[in-house]
Amino acid sequence: MNATPLSRESHTTLTDQLAERFAERIRQRLIAPGARLPSVRECARRHQVSPHTVVAAYDQLLAAGLVEARRQRGFFVREPRPAASAPAPAAGHAVRPTAPISATALVRGMFQPPGARPMPGLGTLPVEWLDVPMLATALRRVTSGHQLEAMTVRYGEPAGDLRLRRALSGKLAELGVPAPPEQIVTTAGATQALDVVTRTLLRPGDTVLVDEPGWSVEYARLAALGMRMLPVPRGEDGPDLATMARLIEAQKPADRPRLYVTVSVLHNPTGASLALGTAHRLLQLAQQHDFHIVEDDTYAHLAPAHLPRLSALDGLGRTIYVSGFSKILAPNWRVGYLAASPALVERVIDTKLLTSLTTPVMQEQAIAHCLEQGLLRRHVERITRLLDAARARTVRAAEAAGCRFGAPPRGLFGWLDAGTDTERLSHTMLDDGWLLAPGSLFFASPRPTSLMRINFATTQEPAFWQALQRARRGA
Amino acid sequence: MNATPLSRESHTTLTDQLAERFAERIRQRLIAPGARLPSVRECARRHQVSPHTVVAAYDQLLAAGLVEARRQRGFFVREPRPAASAPAPAAGHAVRPTAPISATALVRGMFQPPGARPMPGLGTLPVEWLDVPMLATALRRVTSGHQLEAMTVRYGEPAGDLRLRRALSGKLAELGVPAPPEQIVTTAGATQALDVVTRTLLRPGDTVLVDEPGWSVEYARLAALGMRMLPVPRGEDGPDLATMARLIEAQKPADRPRLYVTVSVLHNPTGASLALGTAHRLLQLAQQHDFHIVEDDTYAHLAPAHLPRLSALDGLGRTIYVSGFSKILAPNWRVGYLAASPALVERVIDTKLLTSLTTPVMQEQAIAHCLEQGLLRRHVERITRLLDAARARTVRAAEAAGCRFGAPPRGLFGWLDAGTDTERLSHTMLDDGWLLAPGSLFFASPRPTSLMRINFATTQEPAFWQALQRARRGA
Repeated sequence: MNATPLSRESHTTLTDQLAERFAERIRQRLIAPGARLPSVRECARRHQVSPHTVVAAYDQLLAAGLVEARRQRGFFVREPRPAASAPAPAAGHAVRPTAPISATALVRGMFQPPGARPMPGLGTLPVEWLDVPMLATALRRVTSGHQLEAMTVRYGEPAGDLRLRRALSGKLAELGVPAPPEQIVTTAGATQALDVVTRTLLRPGDTVLVDEPGWSVEYARLAALGMRMLPVPRGEDGPDLATMARLIEAQKPADRPRLYVTVSVLHNPTGASLALGTAHRLLQLAQQHDFHIVEDDTYAHLAPAHLPRLSALDGLGRTIYVSGFSKILAPNWRVGYLAASPALVERVIDTKLLTSLTTPVMQEQAIAHCLEQGLLRRHVERITRLLDAARARTVRAAEAAGCRFGAPPRGLFGWLDAGTDTERLSHTMLDDGWLLAPGSLFFASPRPTSLMRINFATTQEPAFWQALQRARRGA
Repeated sequence: MNATPLSRESHTTLTDQLAERFAERIRQRLIAPGARLPSVRECARRHQVSPHTVVAAYDQLLAAGLVEARRQRGFFVREPRPAASAPAPAAGHAVRPTAPISATALVRGMFQPPGARPMPGLGTLPVEWLDVPMLATALRRVTSGHQLEAMTVRYGEPAGDLRLRRALSGKLAELGVPAPPEQIVTTAGATQALDVVTRTLLRPGDTVLVDEPGWSVEYARLAALGMRMLPVPRGEDGPDLATMARLIEAQKPADRPRLYVTVSVLHNPTGASLALGTAHRLLQLAQQHDFHIVEDDTYAHLAPAHLPRLSALDGLGRTIYVSGFSKILAPNWRVGYLAASPALVERVIDTKLLTSLTTPVMQEQAIAHCLEQGLLRRHVERITRLLDAARARTVRAAEAAGCRFGAPPRGLFGWLDAGTDTERLSHTMLDDGWLLAPGSLFFASPRPTSLMRINFATTQEPAFWQALQRARRGA
C-alpha cells in the first residue's frame, strides 16, 4: 500500500500519480466495487493538491473504465462484471446484495506482502505468534522414509485422511460433539467446508438466515451462490430469536429458510458467545421450522471448551460443525473440516469430489501429529496468554483514545465504536497506510455505522492510535 | 470390492450376504443412483442362488431405503436426496440430468485402496509409473531451512505461488499459449479450476455446450451447479460444428449458450484431438454467438505440443485454459491451474477466494522446481514410452478378443466397442472384481451403448481380457 505523499519532484504529474494510486487500490480491491471515491474537495484537501488535479485524475479513472460518475452523487468504483439479471428482491426483509464481492477488499487485505505493518482490520494472528519449528518437525515426521509415497501417488480418501479424522474426533469429543471419524470430512480450510455444505444443502434462490452483524465474506459467498439472505440481529447471548421467528413466519412457504449460518462462540465481529438457553431454544426453532444450522467454529481454538456448541446439544442432528487450522496454525496449509450426520456426510463428500476431488494428505497428517502429541494444546495455551495481554493493552489504548466497545472485549476481535462514520474513517486511514475493517462490511446490506472491527493482536502500536485520533478529528 | 462368490459355509444367510454386497456397492456409489439392479433371474444365475434368495435380498434393500421398486421395470438405486424442484426442461435438445451424481461411481472408483488390482475403468496412470523420489527431492529442496515459514504463516498470494506461475508461463509458451504469470491462477487440481471458472462465468440456469461423448464428472458438476447442457456430437476432428450452430440457433435468445466446455487434445473418452481447421471455425462460431470456451487440457502432458490448442489460436481472448499435475505427477498434491484474459483473471481470483481462499504453496513450489529443472520433461518422456508400449499390447489383446475401437487408439484411453451393452457388462464384471467405465457414463443423457472407455495402462493383464470374454459370452 502506498502511504507516501504525492511527489512534487517526480517525472510523473500529480494527476497521473493520484490516478495511479486510486487505480492500484481499485485493482487490489482495497476500494470495493460500488464504493464512492472521496469528494473532489475532500481528496484535494487530503492530498494537498488543487481540485483541478483531482478532477483530472478522476477523469482518467473514468476513461479507464474503473469508475463511473453518478449525477449529483460523485464517482463510484465500477462492478468488475456486468450486473447479473438477478431475480427481483422478494418481500420481507430478504437481502440479495447487488455487489457480491464487496467483501473482497478485506479478503484481499489478508494477503499483504511480508513486512507490511500489522493491520488492525485483518482477521488473523500476527505471523510471529505462529510456531513454524513445531510445524516443520511435524511435517518432517509424517513425510519421512516411504511415507510420502502414500501422500502423493493416490488421490487419497474422499473424506480426507483417516488419521486426522480420528484426531479430530477426539478433539470434538472434548467439546461434547459426538462425531466418529466417519462423520468428519476434511476440506481446504473452513472456507471450503462452508462452501461445500451450502452447495450440498441449498439450491440457488433458497433462503438462508445469517447473523447481523456477521462475517462479510460469508455474505459474499452466499450471494455469489445466488442465495437469498435473511439477516437476524445478533446480540450478546446469540441471535434475537423473537425476530428470527417473526422473519421466518413472514416468508411465503416456498421462501422459508432452509439453513442458518452462525458463529456460536467468539462471534465475528462482536466476540460474543451463545448462551446455553438461547442455544436450546434456537434448536427448538430449527426443529419447528425444519432448517439446518451451520455452526462455523473458526475461532474454536481461542474459546474455552465449556462454551456451548449447538452441535453438542444437537448431536449433529440438524447442525453441521465447521472449523479449521488456518487461524491458529498455518494459514497457507488450508486444512479445515466439517462434521455432520451420517446421511449428510455422504452427500457432502460427493460435493467435495465434484468441487476439488480430495485434499492434500501431507498437511493433514502433520496437523494430526500436532493434535496427537498435545503440541496444538500447548501452542493454544501460549497464544491465549499472548492474546489476553494484547487485548488488555488495546482496551486501555482504545479507552485512552476515547473509544468505547459495542460489545465486551473477548477473543481476537473488538467491536469498537469510533464515534464517527467508519467507512469514511477507513478511507482516511488507508491514506496513512492502515487497513481498517469498517462496520459497514459486517452488515448484509451495508449501512453507515460508527462501529468497526479491530484485531486485538494487531492494534498494539501507539502509532495506530495516534493516526486514528488524527483521522477522527479530521473526519 | 468383494469379488468372491457367496459363501455357503458362512453363519450369514445367502440372502443377507447378497443384500449386504449390494448395499455396500450402493453406499460406495459403485452402483450409481438411478441405476437398475440386475433382474432377479439374471442375479440368481450369476450368483448361483435361487430366485427366492434374490427377491428376499432385494426386499431387504427396499426396506433399508436403498432401492425403490418401479412396477414392471424392476429395482432402482434411490437418489440419496429428495428430487430437487428443478425447473422444467426447456425446448430444444437441452439436458438437465435428474441424477447429478450418476458419475460419482467412477469418481469414487478413483479412490481404490492400495493393492487393489489395476482398474480398466479408471482415468489415472498406474501408481508405479509415478516418480516419488523425484517429488520427494523437490519437496525437500523447496522446504529446507527457512523456506517453510513463508509457505505456512501467511495465506499466500490469491493467484497462487508466483514461482510456479512463472514456470507455467514458460510451459504454456511452448504450446503457443501467450500467458504471462499475471494471467495464471493456481487451483486445487484442474477440478477446482473448472469449478471456479464455471461459477465465475455462469449463473444457475445458464446454458452450456458440452462434448458428447464427454467426461461425465464435468456433466455432473454442471448439473450440480444448476446449468442447462446442450450436448454437441464430438467427432474425430472435434465438435460437429454444423450441429453446434443449429443447436445454438434453436435456442430462445435468453437460452443461448454462454460457454462451451471441451477437451481439445486427447479427448476423454475417445482420444481424438481437434483439427486445426475445426479449431479456427469453432472460434469464429464462438465470436459470432459470443460464448466463452473452457479448454480442459488435463491430458496435456501426454499429448504432443504441436497439436493445436484453442487458447493458442485465440490468445486467451474468449478461451480459458485449464490443466494440472494430478494425472502426470501427484494426484493427492492437488495442483492445477488456469490461464485467462486479464479482465477475467481478477474475477476468477475473487471466486477462488470465496471458495477456498488460497492454495498450498508447498506443493506448488515443488512442482515449479520440477518444471524449472527439466525433471517433468524427462518424466513425461518416460511415461510416454511406457504408455506407447502398453497401448500397443492392449490393442493387440482387444483385437484378439474380437473387440474393435470406436476411435483410433491414442493417449491414455481407448473407446472400445465390446459388441454388447456395456452397462450390463459392467455389472457382471464388477462381480468379478473389475471396475469398468461403461459408455453410458460418457453421455449427458445416458443411453444404451456397446462402447466403453478403457485405460491402456491398466488393461495389461490377460486375466482381464479372459474375464471380459466370459462376461460377453454370458451377456
